[in-house]
Amino acid sequence: MIKIPVGILGATGTVGQRFIQLLADHPWFEVTAVAASERSAGQRYESACHWLLPEPMPDQVRDLLVQPPTPGLDCRIVFSSLPSKVAAQVEAPLAEAGYAVCSNASTHRMDPDVPLLIPEVNPDHTGLIEVQRRERGRRGLIVTSANCSSTQLVLSLKPLQDAFGVKRLYVTTMQAVSGAGYPGVASLDILSNVVPYIGGEEPKLESEPQKMLGRIKEGDIVPADFVSSAQCNRVPVRDGHLECVSIEFASKPDVGQIVAALESFRAPVEVADLPSTPEVPIVVRTEEDRPQPILDRDAGRGYAVSVGRIRPCALFDYKFVLLGHNTLRGAAGGAIHNAELLVSQGWIE
Amino acid sequence: MIKIPVGILGATGTVGQRFIQLLADHPWFEVTAVAASERSAGQRYESACHWLLPEPMPDQVRDLLVQPPTPGLDCRIVFSSLPSKVAAQVEAPLAEAGYAVCSNASTHRMDPDVPLLIPEVNPDHTGLIEVQRRERGRRGLIVTSANCSSTQLVLSLKPLQDAFGVKRLYVTTMQAVSGAGYPGVASLDILSNVVPYIGGEEPKLESEPQKMLGRIKEGDIVPADFVSSAQCNRVPVRDGHLECVSIEFASKPDVGQIVAALESFRAPVEVADLPSTPEVPIVVRTEEDRPQPILDRDAGRGYAVSVGRIRPCALFDYKFVLLGHNTLRGAAGGAIHNAELLVSQGWIE
Amino acid sequence: MIKIPVGILGATGTVGQRFIQLLADHPWFEVTAVAASERSAGQRYESACHWLLPEPMPDQVRDLLVQPPTPGLDCRIVFSSLPSKVAAQVEAPLAEAGYAVCSNASTHRMDPDVPLLIPEVNPDHTGLIEVQRRERGRRGLIVTSANCSSTQLVLSLKPLQDAFGVKRLYVTTMQAVSGAGYPGVASLDILSNVVPYIGGEEPKLESEPQKMLGRIKEGDIVPADFVSSAQCNRVPVRDGHLECVSIEFASKPDVGQIVAALESFRAPVEVADLPSTPEVPIVVRTEEDRPQPILDRDAGRGYAVSVGRIRPCALFDYKFVLLGHNTLRGAAGGAIHNAELLVSQGWIE
Amino acid sequence: MIKIPVGILGATGTVGQRFIQLLADHPWFEVTAVAASERSAGQRYESACHWLLPEPMPDQVRDLLVQPPTPGLDCRIVFSSLPSKVAAQVEAPLAEAGYAVCSNASTHRMDPDVPLLIPEVNPDHTGLIEVQRRERGRRGLIVTSANCSSTQLVLSLKPLQDAFGVKRLYVTTMQAVSGAGYPGVASLDILSNVVPYIGGEEPKLESEPQKMLGRIKEGDIVPADFVSSAQCNRVPVRDGHLECVSIEFASKPDVGQIVAALESFRAPVEVADLPSTPEVPIVVRTEEDRPQPILDRDAGRGYAVSVGRIRPCALFDYKFVLLGHNTLRGAAGGAIHNAELLVSQGWIE
Repeated sequence: MIKIPVGILGATGTVGQRFIQLLADHPWFEVTAVAASERSAGQRYESACHWLLPEPMPDQVRDLLVQPPTPGLDCRIVFSSLPSKVAAQVEAPLAEAGYAVCSNASTHRMDPDVPLLIPEVNPDHTGLIEVQRRERGRRGLIVTSANCSSTQLVLSLKPLQDAFGVKRLYVTTMQAVSGAGYPGVASLDILSNVVPYIGGEEPKLESEPQKMLGRIKEGDIVPADFVSSAQCNRVPVRDGHLECVSIEFASKPDVGQIVAALESFRAPVEVADLPSTPEVPIVVRTEEDRPQPILDRDAGRGYAVSVGRIRPCALFDYKFVLLGHNTLRGAAGGAIHNAELLVSQGWIE
Repeated sequence: MIKIPVGILGATGTVGQRFIQLLADHPWFEVTAVAASERSAGQRYESACHWLLPEPMPDQVRDLLVQPPTPGLDCRIVFSSLPSKVAAQVEAPLAEAGYAVCSNASTHRMDPDVPLLIPEVNPDHTGLIEVQRRERGRRGLIVTSANCSSTQLVLSLKPLQDAFGVKRLYVTTMQAVSGAGYPGVASLDILSNVVPYIGGEEPKLESEPQKMLGRIKEGDIVPADFVSSAQCNRVPVRDGHLECVSIEFASKPDVGQIVAALESFRAPVEVADLPSTPEVPIVVRTEEDRPQPILDRDAGRGYAVSVGRIRPCALFDYKFVLLGHNTLRGAAGGAIHNAELLVSQGWIE
Repeated sequence: MIKIPVGILGATGTVGQRFIQLLADHPWFEVTAVAASERSAGQRYESACHWLLPEPMPDQVRDLLVQPPTPGLDCRIVFSSLPSKVAAQVEAPLAEAGYAVCSNASTHRMDPDVPLLIPEVNPDHTGLIEVQRRERGRRGLIVTSANCSSTQLVLSLKPLQDAFGVKRLYVTTMQAVSGAGYPGVASLDILSNVVPYIGGEEPKLESEPQKMLGRIKEGDIVPADFVSSAQCNRVPVRDGHLECVSIEFASKPDVGQIVAALESFRAPVEVADLPSTPEVPIVVRTEEDRPQPILDRDAGRGYAVSVGRIRPCALFDYKFVLLGHNTLRGAAGGAIHNAELLVSQGWIE
Repeated sequence: MIKIPVGILGATGTVGQRFIQLLADHPWFEVTAVAASERSAGQRYESACHWLLPEPMPDQVRDLLVQPPTPGLDCRIVFSSLPSKVAAQVEAPLAEAGYAVCSNASTHRMDPDVPLLIPEVNPDHTGLIEVQRRERGRRGLIVTSANCSSTQLVLSLKPLQDAFGVKRLYVTTMQAVSGAGYPGVASLDILSNVVPYIGGEEPKLESEPQKMLGRIKEGDIVPADFVSSAQCNRVPVRDGHLECVSIEFASKPDVGQIVAALESFRAPVEVADLPSTPEVPIVVRTEEDRPQPILDRDAGRGYAVSVGRIRPCALFDYKFVLLGHNTLRGAAGGAIHNAELLVSQGWIE
């Protein structure tokens, strides 16, 4: 099989590096272009990039020249991990020019005609691409992946929403420093400390899940009908976001039914065979002190979420603890997964 | 002034050491007895204790012989930081024998005739001592201080309860490792990790506040009438517990009224002049990323709590972030403060 | 191929767990017995063990009954990660009874007839087994692997010793908490702290390397003839020991010759094909700030050591920085590697 | 007493903030001017500064306008914590203009006519000021304080050099992140990691001590005659630099003589009464695992150094472990101490 040429926007950042590492042995995709800000443009990737992953830089990208993030990139799909302001300037022109833009930036996530996609959760939302193309005269497309905290939350909510209906949702996060990129969080701010604030995070976590769990009706997303409140914290953890969640349901399950709904959840047939889909998307832990970032973030090669401590809540119906790998499922991995869905659905001709 | 002789139960533990350090220069109290488990009994304190505080061990305790925690201790007040199982065996006999037991153990906190005390919050709860003495024929007394997370929460709730009435309360904690004593949390469990479980903590946090904010009626505590739910986490922080709180009120204040209630809160007159009472018990922070353990735990010499990020909550009325020093106000300091209240109220003849 | 049945002594500890995880898919060995202290004996392994690795417990060990570490274990080889006092009582009887004991305990490391083995470094030291059997009438055997810090140091010294002769060696270590087992280092001792002391570590680091780099002469080890001094520190790192080394050589190489000696080092032919032998045992880093625990400990699947910052030293000839994975190459992995050597050399009939 | 007006260059940085905090209650000095880079100039200090210390910002500086670091500052002494490149441009002009510049920047440390000063160690080195004024026609002066690691090392070396003569010195450092300023070290670089490199640090540590321990001869410093080698590492510690040291002496003391020399060391009479001079400049610890950053950095209010684990070294004569507070004694505090010496010696008219 001839691999599909792909490019990375923001290729020298931490998420960009993760894209490159995850794509090194991808069965369908091959990195043929790397783009970054003007400061790096023109340099060899190896020189432009302060590589921060334990896995060595893949040989095939070392000699790629860093290009500006504009049409002219030699690829079909572009993965974007650009800052949202930069993404606002370059993603749409690339989509007009025919590229399939799989973006991890927040810029277009809430655009009404742009899918906010998790393959196991809402693969039908790609239907919005038709709207996008028709109304904007776009030859390519933009699909987005959600904020890392939203992604792992929604993956665990999907079977609960389907089975019992989510009415109210309260979530407090404890997020790893890798979520802030590099250099990101200063060590003086976080060593033996917690910062109870992450800029822009709470509004995302209070709106993205409803869109992802919504349904398409006549070319529009009708968001899921629940109210949520979020408090977001940065903790001295390298990788893995932990979330303490409480939920009120429309119908009242018992604990066994919740466990059964989570454990039996599988990706829809059209998604199950994508290269990145984990066999078991939601791992239920029964130990009283799990999930933990160190022990559980790599479940399902970092694409599964782990749920534990499912128990009654005095204010809502149930509370539990949720963990996911923020830079795998929650960032680069999620966008690659989305691209796989686009290919299998035939959006990339 | 002749100082009142006091003893420490559990004197070699981390909270015991903090008692000794805080009492080294106390204007009213003087440490004359140290007690610990049988393993240490008979040794000089200096030899029995693996001292873990940056402040050097006070000279006056080095040569005290460690005794068993039984009547016979040469003191009037005993401060107890014993494990709850040991406290269950020794605190009551000491109270019967005439000692004033100021305990930080959880054993007797919820006993109906034992005050669960914060001087700024419920100094009148010492009225239960009369019940205790009458019904148990006790010459001495037991008063208790609450769990560290409960203490700092209740201190911030007090003016809000008085002004607006708390109806529902949701709290997620991020607690420091010093709260677990020594050796306590293993480094392999917590370095670059979060443990979303602390044994016994959530039930305490869901019941102690209601008792502390209750009122005495005919010799009984009528607990405050609100429902709460707690999720407790251990984070890699040395000192300082952070809590994300959401509250529904009976009457609906605006943000300015909440800030005003918190900032204007002062200890009652009879409490304001106690040696440990902080001038401003509740510090309101206006920065978007405060309070933080490193920066705010020492507010008011570790006896004040800091509140920040006061903002509307989509599910309750308001949410905010709360911080206190768990081993100062939250443990040894709180028990000393209680003893000061007992002295000023005349319970220690 | 029928796999060789192996047992683990100290199977419930952190190194014991690592043995089990590394042996789960081993091409030659199969875990058929687990042994631990009396407290666990008789329980199913799954119940007896507080599993601490991110990789899930392999299914084949869950139902094994934990046995006492005495003859009667159903296996040919036993891997020992027992505390040294326990090892002193049980390893020799097992060797007399015919088992091949591959020990990670310090007890017998410096016995004159016991090999202290690193397959790439001194595979001929297994010749001591004949002495051991002859003089002790032993049907089985004991071979040992060195302290974690010694192992990675010696691996990097081997080509330098061969090419230039080590005369004097100075080493300061910064060691990860996983080296102390579980619960091991208390978090209060190490969070945002360094402990400049590790019990028993410095003497090991000042004597084991000379034995490992010695040569066999008439059934005795003649230790390598150099003097060394060590200072050992515990740092808040999960895995990976870093060492700052300075060396005086007998002959005076230039930097290029040192790099060439390290980079061209390969395992001897008889060792190169063992399952655990890394292709490149010594990785030379040229960045000014490498190696680092997070980035380099997994080089060669955790069996290679990384060397960087090779530069002249004003007091010795050269100084450099060395890193290895303390629980892989430095503990369980090293002992398994030794067992592979024994099999390939025909010591396990 | 009317206080001497002083200014801070680099006032918004972490060391600048420490200057302001330490000077808030200084008996001799009063902060009347704050200067920083052009970006901040013209703003109120409170607005320009992202305050990072747990102690609140002193009221007296909140309303000071940030000025450029040029003559025109309303003060007599300026404390400089500027980056070395900026210091190279502004410190000399300020000295020409009559200011006493007490600099913590590395720029002029090794200038032959600039004292590199520690009051307890080399108070006579201020004699170089006369050379400086004569040869450069300078009305003011520049004195410098050393690198943090050099400072604490030299303080401990002074009595040893005087009593036994240092011949060779080997040092490996483990340095706190606060030494790198803010934002400084990225959390992704240091959480659960060690970086075995600090730019420019090793050459400083191999040259500054010799100058400080040198003697003045005919207006020149004759450096102390010993050779040293340093390896510097960044560790995940907030405050406090730890150093593992080995020394060869000219005469051969026993351990008791070394301890006696260190413990009996006191500041010279003219220095003993300066406000910042610690009563006991060198604290000798006898526990096997001390000094540690968390427990010992605040010895002598952060102005004393702690020495422990004094023991024979197989390669040199003795080895020991040394600890100091890098932002107190090692940075702002040291420069203030130097200014106190200048005042007491009459250099500030």
